[in-house]
Amino acid sequence: MKELTEQTIAKQTIHKGKLIQLDVEDVKLPDGTIAKRELVRHPGAVAVVAITEDGKMVLVEQYRKALEKAIIEIPAGKMEPGEAPEKTARRELVEETGYQAEALTLITSFYTSPGFADELVYVYEATGLKKGDQRLDEGEFVRVLELTEMECDRLEQEGRIHDAKTSYALQYWKLKNRR
Amino acid sequence: MKELTEQTIAKQTIHKGKLIQLDVEDVKLPDGTIAKRELVRHPGAVAVVAITEDGKMVLVEQYRKALEKAIIEIPAGKMEPGEAPEKTARRELVEETGYQAEALTLITSFYTSPGFADELVYVYEATGLKKGDQRLDEGEFVRVLELTEMECDRLEQEGRIHDAKTSYALQYWKLKNRR
Repeated sequence: MKELTEQTIAKQTIHKGKLIQLDVEDVKLPDGTIAKRELVRHPGAVAVVAITEDGKMVLVEQYRKALEKAIIEIPAGKMEPGEAPEKTARRELVEETGYQAEALTLITSFYTSPGFADELVYVYEATGLKKGDQRLDEGEFVRVLELTEMECDRLEQEGRIHDAKTSYALQYWKLKNRR
Repeated sequence: MKELTEQTIAKQTIHKGKLIQLDVEDVKLPDGTIAKRELVRHPGAVAVVAITEDGKMVLVEQYRKALEKAIIEIPAGKMEPGEAPEKTARRELVEETGYQAEALTLITSFYTSPGFADELVYVYEATGLKKGDQRLDEGEFVRVLELTEMECDRLEQEGRIHDAKTSYALQYWKLKNRR
């Protein structure tokens, strides 16, 4: 919608970090008034819905400093520069959980926080899982879990599963199981 | 999980803006090594799944500067300091769409980007909708749409519905319709 466009008239990069960049922009709104936008640039990420042959979802528990607690999520990770999302998905799944996937199929992609960030998450489904060993990056501490739908529901109610991509993944699994 | 905890040993606030704050922290990992964490602080937000009596979802199209495009989302907005999420949900729904809800029921809440941000979104379902007039804030430009499930699916395939909370909402609606 062209009439909704916000035109940049000034831009300042506040922070260029290891993971994110923060820009503050002055923008001209459709009615000509000026407003400030705080914009976080992120390289993008992948997440993987991985269901084992005995019908359990593979999840990882890790500490999230932004939340000051550990939560349980589907395996995920940020994309390296120039890396195709399917490759990131394959790499992160094996690194974090030890599982090798025969096939990866893109389910969807979504922006996580369009109000202030450009982070785009590609969500894949992994099939034909074969268990191997975790190969964590240095400084990565992750506990692997394999849980039934009912166990996931309980952890979601308890707030231990508590992020958008994992809530999406649980609904995707439910819809698939009921088809 | 106590053994996963990352302990802050130094903290610097890089940016304190209108919407977000950016902190960079040095943390001590479980094995004693030191790492940097870039952490975006956000006041939290609400989003509303609003289905009309004739079975259509109420959505809003707005420009998202972080993405440099307009996308179609469920009505949402950030919480004001000290505001209860249900009140935010009621306020944002009527401001953005004109719809008054008889009742609001919390469906779930989730962190949108736990890898770098503490933004928590409360997702409500609005029932008993009554149409009134949009009351947008100054500088807010929003187009209201009422769409069938099939129309939403098509827009999602086209990437015009493309954010986590709205993808979650569509799945929630599908699961409800199939019960």
